[in-house]
Formats: sequence, C-alpha cells, structure tokens
Amino acid sequence: MSDTEPLGIGLVGHAFMGAAHSQAWRTVGRVFAPPLSPRMSVLCGRDADGTAAAARRLGWARAETDWRKLIASEDVDLVDICTPGDTHPEIAIAALEAGKHVLCEKPLANSVSSAEAMAEAALRANERGVRSMVGFNYRRVPALALARRLVLAGRIGKIRHVRAQYLQDFIVDPESPMMWRLDRERAGSGALGDIGTHIVDLAQFVTAEHITGVSGLTSTFVPERPLGDGSGRYGTVTVDDAAAFLARFSGGALATFEASRFATGRKNAMRLEINGSAGSLAFDFESMNELSFHDHGEDASTAGFRRILVTEPEHPYLHAWWPPGHGLGYEHTFTHQARDVLEAIGNDQPPAPSFADGLAVQRVLDAVEHSAANSSTWTEVPAHPAIP
Amino acid sequence: MSDTEPLGIGLVGHAFMGAAHSQAWRTVGRVFAPPLSPRMSVLCGRDADGTAAAARRLGWARAETDWRKLIASEDVDLVDICTPGDTHPEIAIAALEAGKHVLCEKPLANSVSSAEAMAEAALRANERGVRSMVGFNYRRVPALALARRLVLAGRIGKIRHVRAQYLQDFIVDPESPMMWRLDRERAGSGALGDIGTHIVDLAQFVTAEHITGVSGLTSTFVPERPLGDGSGRYGTVTVDDAAAFLARFSGGALATFEASRFATGRKNAMRLEINGSAGSLAFDFESMNELSFHDHGEDASTAGFRRILVTEPEHPYLHAWWPPGHGLGYEHTFTHQARDVLEAIGNDQPPAPSFADGLAVQRVLDAVEHSAANSSTWTEVPAHPAIP
Amino acid sequence: MSDTEPLGIGLVGHAFMGAAHSQAWRTVGRVFAPPLSPRMSVLCGRDADGTAAAARRLGWARAETDWRKLIASEDVDLVDICTPGDTHPEIAIAALEAGKHVLCEKPLANSVSSAEAMAEAALRANERGVRSMVGFNYRRVPALALARRLVLAGRIGKIRHVRAQYLQDFIVDPESPMMWRLDRERAGSGALGDIGTHIVDLAQFVTAEHITGVSGLTSTFVPERPLGDGSGRYGTVTVDDAAAFLARFSGGALATFEASRFATGRKNAMRLEINGSAGSLAFDFESMNELSFHDHGEDASTAGFRRILVTEPEHPYLHAWWPPGHGLGYEHTFTHQARDVLEAIGNDQPPAPSFADGLAVQRVLDAVEHSAANSSTWTEVPAHPAIP
Amino acid sequence: MSDTEPLGIGLVGHAFMGAAHSQAWRTVGRVFAPPLSPRMSVLCGRDADGTAAAARRLGWARAETDWRKLIASEDVDLVDICTPGDTHPEIAIAALEAGKHVLCEKPLANSVSSAEAMAEAALRANERGVRSMVGFNYRRVPALALARRLVLAGRIGKIRHVRAQYLQDFIVDPESPMMWRLDRERAGSGALGDIGTHIVDLAQFVTAEHITGVSGLTSTFVPERPLGDGSGRYGTVTVDDAAAFLARFSGGALATFEASRFATGRKNAMRLEINGSAGSLAFDFESMNELSFHDHGEDASTAGFRRILVTEPEHPYLHAWWPPGHGLGYEHTFTHQARDVLEAIGNDQPPAPSFADGLAVQRVLDAVEHSAANSSTWTEVPAHPAIP
Repeated sequence: MSDTEPLGIGLVGHAFMGAAHSQAWRTVGRVFAPPLSPRMSVLCGRDADGTAAAARRLGWARAETDWRKLIASEDVDLVDICTPGDTHPEIAIAALEAGKHVLCEKPLANSVSSAEAMAEAALRANERGVRSMVGFNYRRVPALALARRLVLAGRIGKIRHVRAQYLQDFIVDPESPMMWRLDRERAGSGALGDIGTHIVDLAQFVTAEHITGVSGLTSTFVPERPLGDGSGRYGTVTVDDAAAFLARFSGGALATFEASRFATGRKNAMRLEINGSAGSLAFDFESMNELSFHDHGEDASTAGFRRILVTEPEHPYLHAWWPPGHGLGYEHTFTHQARDVLEAIGNDQPPAPSFADGLAVQRVLDAVEHSAANSSTWTEVPAHPAIP
Repeated sequence: MSDTEPLGIGLVGHAFMGAAHSQAWRTVGRVFAPPLSPRMSVLCGRDADGTAAAARRLGWARAETDWRKLIASEDVDLVDICTPGDTHPEIAIAALEAGKHVLCEKPLANSVSSAEAMAEAALRANERGVRSMVGFNYRRVPALALARRLVLAGRIGKIRHVRAQYLQDFIVDPESPMMWRLDRERAGSGALGDIGTHIVDLAQFVTAEHITGVSGLTSTFVPERPLGDGSGRYGTVTVDDAAAFLARFSGGALATFEASRFATGRKNAMRLEINGSAGSLAFDFESMNELSFHDHGEDASTAGFRRILVTEPEHPYLHAWWPPGHGLGYEHTFTHQARDVLEAIGNDQPPAPSFADGLAVQRVLDAVEHSAANSSTWTEVPAHPAIP
Repeated sequence: MSDTEPLGIGLVGHAFMGAAHSQAWRTVGRVFAPPLSPRMSVLCGRDADGTAAAARRLGWARAETDWRKLIASEDVDLVDICTPGDTHPEIAIAALEAGKHVLCEKPLANSVSSAEAMAEAALRANERGVRSMVGFNYRRVPALALARRLVLAGRIGKIRHVRAQYLQDFIVDPESPMMWRLDRERAGSGALGDIGTHIVDLAQFVTAEHITGVSGLTSTFVPERPLGDGSGRYGTVTVDDAAAFLARFSGGALATFEASRFATGRKNAMRLEINGSAGSLAFDFESMNELSFHDHGEDASTAGFRRILVTEPEHPYLHAWWPPGHGLGYEHTFTHQARDVLEAIGNDQPPAPSFADGLAVQRVLDAVEHSAANSSTWTEVPAHPAIP
Repeated sequence: MSDTEPLGIGLVGHAFMGAAHSQAWRTVGRVFAPPLSPRMSVLCGRDADGTAAAARRLGWARAETDWRKLIASEDVDLVDICTPGDTHPEIAIAALEAGKHVLCEKPLANSVSSAEAMAEAALRANERGVRSMVGFNYRRVPALALARRLVLAGRIGKIRHVRAQYLQDFIVDPESPMMWRLDRERAGSGALGDIGTHIVDLAQFVTAEHITGVSGLTSTFVPERPLGDGSGRYGTVTVDDAAAFLARFSGGALATFEASRFATGRKNAMRLEINGSAGSLAFDFESMNELSFHDHGEDASTAGFRRILVTEPEHPYLHAWWPPGHGLGYEHTFTHQARDVLEAIGNDQPPAPSFADGLAVQRVLDAVEHSAANSSTWTEVPAHPAIP
C-alpha cells in the first residue's frame, strides 16, 4: 500500500472507539486502495502508562498525554477524536485551526451552540482545503449504503413512513453502577444523544430527506444508581434512559423514533424500516449483512420482502472483501469510514457527513428534548441546507 | 354438541366480519364444549335477495332486512353486530334494552359520547344478567393470550416499553377508489379507529395496564380519490391514512404506537413488543402461531429470544385443536371469541372485553386525535377503572 | 350452499383425522362453491357409545359400528377412510366395488401389494365413474400449491436439488409408551410411512418429477417402550424411529429426504427446499403461510429469497378466504381437499392424487426399506406413468 | 503487543486464503494477547511481480517465489500453506522436516495416502516440539465453538441426528468457465472436498463424535464448460458439482450431509443442525453471529428455539472484541485460528485440529466417493483414535 502519499494520523482516546478506529487505520490500506496511506503516528490519552501500553498494543508509533501536542506534531495530518462529547469542540476547533483534518466521533457536541461553533470552524477550514467529517460509522454498513442507493434510484418511491429504533439493554439492572454516560455534564444526554443520534443521521442519510419537526417523550426509569466506588452511596442519573419521538420528514413522511438502554434482550438492535409508494426497506443491525427489500411493482402472487444478503461484489464496499456469503462485522464500518475519508482528502473533496450534518442531527435531538420538556408540543427543527 | 341449552344467535351484517363470525358460530360447539349451544337463527342485511343468499351460504336459518325485527325475534338470544361503527350504538342499545345479549364488533362506536351511552346501557343490562362484549378478536390469538399470561405471571417484570404497530398497505395506490372506510361519517376515523383500535386494546390487555396520556400525529397522504362510480370524479378522504402516537402506561412504561394503511408490503403486520425488567415479548400477526420470549434471568451465554410455537396443548385454546406444530389461522380467533362469550353467558358472568373496555379504547383514540389537532400536545386519557 | 346436488358422506374413524375431515365437510360449502353439497350422513367407529357421542359432537346425522353397513347405506355416496393403514385396502376396495367414491387417508396401504390391489380397484371403478383419491392433504397448503405453480411456469428452471425433511419430536422421551403407530402390524412402518410418505408425495407433486432410485438408512433409537397398561412391562418397537434416504429424480436432481420423530424441538417441521437453474423455493410447515422464492434472474445487487406471504387472492385457494395477511391454519388443507374432490366428482373427472399416485409413493418407501435392509445399496423405484 | 517473543511467519499463496490469513496475522496481536508475536516475514507466490505487489499490499516484509527458500529462511518459524490441495503434502512435509511449524489450509491433501504421509510427518515433528495444524477455520466461529461447548456440557444429551449442508451457487451458470477447482488433478474433488470437508470436520468437532460409515451419491450436472481462454473450446469437469451422503456417528446418530455449488440463491449456507435427547442446536453461516438452541428441559408452554446472539463476553473469543450485539465477520475466524495456533505453540502444546484430524476427514470423504462409485453401498470409515 506504500506507493501512495502518507497521511499521518493522531488518535485522541483509546477506549472502545479508539480500538475500533485503530483497527480501521491498520486495515484500510491492506484491503482498499485509497489515494493516501495512513500512518499511525500518535495515540493520545490522559494516563501516560496506560496510553503507552495501548499504543504498543494497538500499533501506534508513539504515545502522548497532551492533545495540543498531538495537534502540533509534524507527523500528524489528521486528528481522529474518540473522546466523550464534552471535549469535542475544543479539540476539533483547535485541530482545524492548526490546519489538520479532523475525524470526530458522534455526537458532534453536547449542545447545539457547540456544534454550531464546530460547523463554522469546519466551513472556514474547508475553504483552506482542511477537511472534517463526523463519525457516523453506520452509514458505512453496506446494507444501509445499499438502502440509500435504492432510495436514490427511485425504487422506494415517495416515502410515507420511517420507523427507526436503536435498542440496547445494558443498564436494565437498577444496581448497575453510575458511569460517565449517565452524567449530563459529560455525555450531553443519554440514550437520545448516544444512540438516538445514529438513527437520526441514518434516517436522514438513507431517505435523503431531513426532519422538519418532532414531538418527544423521555424517561429516566432508574433515577439513582450506586456510585460503584465501594462507598455504598448512590448518584443521580441526569440523562434519559430512553427517548421516543414522532417526526415529520421534508417529503411529508410520518416517522417514529425510539432509543433505549432498557429494551431487555436487544443488544444492538438498530432497526430502520422505510415504506414508500414503490417499495419498502427494513434493516436490523443484529443481522447487519442483510437488507429486506419489497418491490411494490412485483406481481402480487410472487411479491414479498426479499432478504438481500449484502455480500456481493456489486454491493457498496464489498468489491474489496470476501466472496459472496462471507459476511462482514461491526468493525468493518470503521474501515469503510477510514477509506471514505482518505478518498475525500486525497481527491481534495469535502467528506460526508460534514460537521454541518452533525449539527443538523444535534438540532433534531435538541428539538426532541425541548418538546419533551414542553408537554411533547410539536417543535420545528431549523432548516438545514447541507443535507443532500 | 346438542346436550347443552341452545342460545339463538342473530347476526347483523354479512360482509367480511359477518362471514368470519358465521364460521365461528358454526364451529365453536364442534371443537369446544361450551355450556350453551349456539343456534344460527337469523341473518340481517339491507338487501333482501343478497341477505337470503348469504344466509343460505353461511348457514343461517332465515334472513331478515330489519334489525329491529331480528332483535324482537323469539329465537334470538344474542345479537351479533358486524356493521360499520356508526350503526353500533342504536342497534346495541336497542338489543340490550330488549334483554338480548350483545356481541359488538370494534370499534365500539365512532365517538366517545356514543361509546359512553353504550357502556352505560351495558352496565344497566348487566345488572339484569344481560351480557355484552366487544369484538376485540385478537385477544384470542393464542400467542397473545399466552403473552398476557406471562406478564401476569411476572415473567416480564416491570414494564419499561411497549412498541405496537398495525401495518397494512391496501390503499397505497392513489388511484384506489373511495370506500366507506375513508369517510369520517361512516367510519369515525381511518387507520387509527380501524386498526389502531386493536393495538390499543391489545397493549392494555397484554400488559394489564392502561394508557394514561398520549401525543399524536396523523397523516392523510392521498386527500382525494376517484369515486369509482365511473363518473371520473374524485371524493375527499376525511380520515387519517396513518396515525402515530407516543404514550405513557399506568406503570410508567414509554410506548410508541403506529397504525397505517400505507406500509407497503406489510399485509396485516400487527406487531407488539414489550420490554420489562425481567424479560421481553415480541409478536407479529403475520406469524400468528409464534411468540418471541426473552427471559432475562437466563445465563448470558445461552440467553436469547425463544421462538415459542404456540401450538401445544398447554397453550391457551389449544387443548381443543390439533397436535403440536399444526397451526391455527385468523378465523380461529373468532371461534375462540364465540367460545369465551358462551362460557361467560352460560356461567352467568360478564364477558370480557366489556363495553367499558371498548369505551376505554375510544378514549385513547379520542385523546390521540385531540393531541394531533393541537400540535401533538400531551393529552391525558381519563382514568378507567374497569381495566384489570 | 344448498342449490347444488347433495353428496352423502360416510366417514370411517373419528380420531385426529376424523375430526379434521369433519371440520372440512362442515366448512367447504360455506366458503367455496363446489358443484356438490356434502351431507354429513354417517360416522363409523368400533365403539357404539363413543361413536354416537362423536357423531353428535362432530355433526354427523347418525352413527354406525360396521363399516360394511356404512358402505351399503343409501345416504352415503362417498366413503371417507380415516382409519389406520392396515384397514385401508379392505374398506376402500369394498366401497369402490359397491359404487361409492372413496377418499382414503395416507399412507394408501401398509404394503406395495395392498396398494397395487387398491390402485387396480380404483382403475376399474374409475371406468364406471366411481372416483377415488388419497388424502395427501399437504398438497393443499396454498404455499405448496403455489410452489408447484412456479415450477410448472418454469420459474425454477432445471431442478438440481430437492431437500425434504419431516421432523417431529413426540417420542423423544424413552418412557413415552407404546402405541399402534410403533407396531409394524398396524402401521406398516414408522416415521417413514407416517410422515415420510407426505414429503415423498409432496416432492413429486411440487417438482412434477418422480423418484427413480434411492439409498436408505433407518434407525430405531428406543427399541423397547413401556406398554403403558400399568403392568410395568415393555413392548418391542417394530418400526423405524427415523429414516433418511438419498434419491435421484427423473430430471437428474440429487435429493435428500429425512423423516424423524426424534428431532427435539421440531413439532411439525415439514420442510421442502428446491434448487433449480433459474431459481429456488423453500418451505417450512411451521410457517405454513409463507413461501420463500429466489429468482435467479434478478440483478445480483437486489436478489434474495423473498418471503411470499401466501394470503393474496391470486394465490391458490385464497380467493375464498380472508383479506391479505390473514393467514390460514392446518385444518384448511382438509377443507381444500374436500373442495377439490367435490369439484372432480361434480365435473366427472378423476381427482388427484389418485390411488396410483399413492401406490407410487408406497413404491418409493418400499425401495427405501429394501435399501436400508441391504447395506444402503442403490435401489431403483419402478417407473410409474401416472405422475404428470 | 511487542513484549512477547516473536514468531516469524512465512505464507505460501496470496489469493483468497492468503489475503484472509494476512488479515489474521496482522490483527491477532492487536486484539488478543497471545504468548508469541507473529512477524509477517515472507510471502511466497509463483509470479515475482505479483507476489511483490501482494506483499506490499498485504504487509509482508519481503516476497519470494520459491517455497523451499521460504522454508529455509531464518526469519520463518511457521509456514502457513494457502495453496491448492495438490501441493500441500510436499510443502508441509518439507517444512516439518526443516523444523518449522505448519498451518495448512484444508483439505489436508487430495488423497488419503497423501494425508497419511502428512499425518505421520506431523506425528514425528510433534515429538520434536514442531507443531502442525489444519485450517478448519469454521471451528473458530464463536457460535460453533459455543455449540461444541453446549454439547460437551450435556445440554444436548444423546445425539440422535446430525443434519449438515454446505450450499453455494457460484457455478450454476453452465457457461461459467473452467477453473482449477473443477479439475480433479488440482483439486482432488469438487464440492465434496472443497466445502464438504468443512461440514465433516465441523460435525465431528461439535458432536465430539466421529463418523463410522457412509452411503454416498454425487452429481456432475454440467460436464463440459468453456475453457474461457477465448478459444471457444470446452473442457471436461472431472469433479463433482454436488455430493450428498448418509452417515452414522459413533454414538448411533443418523446423519445427512450435502455439499453443493448448485444451490441457487444460497451463497455460503453452511448449516448444521443437531438433535439430541436433551436439546437441539441449529446454525447457518449466513447468520454467523447466531446460534439456535432448544432446551428440551424447558416447560412446554415456554419452550422454543432461542436465537442466541453470540456476541457476549462469555462467548468463545468474544471477550477480546466489541460490546454485545456488535457482530463479527468471516475473517475473524482466521484471527481466532491464528490466536489458537499461537497459544498452542507458545504453551508448547499440540494445536487442534491436528493433521490426524485432517486425515480423519479425508477418510470420510474417501469413503463417500467409494460408496458413490459402488451403488451407494454402505462403506465403513476406518476408526480414528485422535478425535476427542
């Protein structure tokens, strides 16, 4: 993979997301033929020893504890941000201003105003050829990229319904302890911001429409949890355990959304169903290599939802992988994301989803929270021209 | 089946529902051992010839065109109402006042006030031993009766989520002509009242809780349709094509509901998923002999949603039917309904669901429409003590 | 239904099959418009009181304990045989010779020679307009009738593979007692003759080809079982608990068949998969309203097995039933069978499957047993011209 | 990953399998903590330029065209053989004799005698601490490793049935050209040796039993295919397009096996179902993150096949990967294989499956071919003590 120009990567954060991104940077040039060759230059974390060990294990050339130094490093051309949402704005804006490309994990920020600042910084940077992308990795599930392709090709027709759910169950147990994800200061919101953000982006991505208004409702089922520090004391959960909302899309579709960490038995059930005048689509991440497609133009006697096994060379991203029927896994979405950002930067194009797209998602989530706090009253989402 | 006392049945209406009820009355005593033997006495319709032909075909002793005469007939002990919703109150109240038991199809009525009048009439009649029941036949799907049994046995624990959908697609084509179901005068409402009514009742039935408030949104995607009378003219659709709402249950659960006739490819997808602290349940009527059940108490390494094939003699209603694995169909729900109403009347008990239960459903639907007309603002549903 | 000429039915046997056939005779004229009206004249059983009670419950005009008298009855035009296989030849041949039409449950007989005698009697009777049919009810599952229709329309192309299984688990427990089905004298064979017979017939029916040779293997996993008479003694199982065989079809397809009562957790999993040069089909009776269909001519990027919900008016038998998505059950196969035999007799045509078709199935089963007893050596099945 | 002792890897072959193995060697130390650190030293191929390019792309330190030199290299401690089956014996035996560990792709060899020679060489080498393993990667699918664990824990009880299929469709088109896989000289056999080999190994692995005898049948549906060299000429297919066989397991179970490249619409449907006295298991590689498990000890009213999503930290190999519900893909089986061979070598243990296990599989396939060539006559498989 070494004939192409190198692109130095600096990764901030080495927990779950950091490990997934590392796997992607390590793999992308071995499988795809991107116009730039990523170099795994620097890994940044707060703890020197832990970060050094992680760098060795994950394959980074060196470790760093100050993200400002990472940004300033000569061997870093792209800053990959895998930290909690409250730190995104400062790191991302600093990196862009330093002329470094940025890949920032979702949610873009914990507030609309922060996201606006980031989107503005991205816009300015973009004029100087400095690129930015938000890490909505599920756009790179081949089945969902295929879903969008079918929508754009008119196979679904006029969209009437969107039905999106992201269901997990990892805090069903009320004695499961507090964590940063349950603290509004750090996480911004709960299920809504963590996983609801994915289905809002995906629904807008697959339909190529945007959400114009919402009515929301949220719940915190377990308001106090053990601190888990051995003190026997309890802390207060300051985010939602689950959120649901009704929505209208720009083309008139009627939609329901739901994000929950209390859907017992559902581990990572990110489900999307779209019904249109010409056909329907259905997806569940728990069977990520499959897309259900109903073509309403088929003869009634043989019509039915097809289970497309999205592993053919004709399918998005699949030409580079294994023969038909040999499925991919969760981590491949990050490899595809790495490929797409390298393609964009190498071809001097702005990658998608942009920070503006990330801001658009934040505005939807903000409207949901506003509605939920105001008797579920219909709340319009400000128009966002950047979505295709 | 003839050793037990006869119960004369008079059926009003002989379209889809009338045919289904006829099949039930004909079958119930051949399969179950109810304490009363139904006699198929009189079939009532508007058109004399058509009704006479239908009576011959469906097995009714005689035909009638005046429902008042049917009610007055000596050989009619129970009036079975299978007409559109706007006619329910007059027929049902007249029958109850004449001392005849009543089985009335859903929705109970087209308005809350009509439903209230019917519920009051039912209450008065009940004191005289005259019984009434509303035809929420899906309560008699064995898988759903089993679902309630599991909830009541504590296998699901504290309920956190209810996710209900009733999806059909029979008017996706904008050139599909007007019909009485699209006329507010006759039908009361559209998808909401026709099929939304089922999932509201079922969700309350299976959870043994009631809905305390809602936020609603409705759509009429195709506002004008051909009259279909050869005139080339179009009529106005005055009901919803689809409705969605958020809801809160009495135990605190967060719920989403959706009813649509525009879910392309979904033929009769009545789906219910319930997530609780101890387990989860999932059902789809398109696979009506199956119930999915997750027991959260299972060891994580072997836990998973079980596909219970609800065809065992231990399952509700199944002792009377075929060996395991030999599934039932849609019409069996009506046979089970007939059995349950005969059991109740024969044992001098009020059957369920009562007209009060039907009223409770109407109040939810009314709140949804009210909310939808008022910016989706949260709308409380009046308390209803009759639901267990 | 009474405008058409009546056809008196005499039913021999009132256990599981007798109840299912009764439901069919009672229903067929209420749903379909057959050219003859069945009259439920006589029910015959060995025990006078039990048979009289069954006749009352199931709706037969009178009871009888001597099947010869049933055959001789003036009000019996068709003799419906629902007894164990060892009694089929004598009853069926006597009925045919008496000029009565015959519907005989499968397996046609317990031996090839008996089946030959029956087929010859049927052939002679047919010349006099006396009809006979064997009760392979699964041919009347709408999904399987649709499967055959797709094969005949060329949608599957040249057939390469047939994969058929009939899996049950009702005698997995070694302490489950002896029964007539485990006694070679009464039942002829075990899983092979009881349920293997269905998949052999179905595979030949759906493919419109016949089996030309087999290699077989059988097992009796539990050779002794409690008599279940309180004596504490054990009896010897003289039939197979499970049977498997390889087969070649007349068009060259390579096939596997398996019938078992030891497939733990499979209740009535009658599965058929067919792979051809132009497409594939898959079916499982545990989801009897569905047919999986893969059209190999579809573009690779959207190809996949379609789940056809076989409930559309265009589907076999469905025009007479409920709206799309409102599925049928096991018993409907018998109603469809009753309709088909009434259509054939009323239109003076020989019904299918004929006794010759039943004989053809017996010859396959006989070849399997012969092969299994001879080191699984390939055993040819005599040609049978009657299969289309 | 660098604190552990390095192990130099030399890979022979860089097509499909070579790419998959490369991904595994690159990844294993980043995710797991094996006792040895693989070094990607040498890649060997026949074409110098192509091999050099592949080495660059796949991440090997240098390229080589002579496998003997690769074996002799000081920086090669383990020889990984990813070439067609006819070359396995020579390379593997030379490597073992040179004191290099060997990982050899399946099938072990194209004939039983070659496989015997290899197994003997492996046995001798093992005494010197030189290890060998055959690449049955599907043993490392977490769901199948879990299946074996459940069998060994007694959750399935006495095994009654094994039902295994490996279905693909990549040569359904008769104009699809000749390739080495269709040439007996190179490939040994067709579907039987290529994919049948996997299900034979897996069935023995999961059940912890061995196959004692078989009855086989094979087909070559398309005997001549275009050479694809532009000459317009056709070549002769000298292997099976599909193979099926009946089998008996050492514990008495009755089994069916089928391997085909003509199962239209099935892309990589490696399916295994096991029925035992205490429960059942079912798996399909097209949904590789799921295992179906039926516990026969469950109460009949809630029993059913559970869909275990095999993504929990308690599941085999999963502790090292992502959170629950975030599935793995095909390539992960090779990473797990690399981990297991490193663990064995590092801990000075013989890895499994051994060459003796590979030989055992060859003996089964040989018996199938022998039976198929002899009227499907039952053919015993020589006993093999090495299988646990």
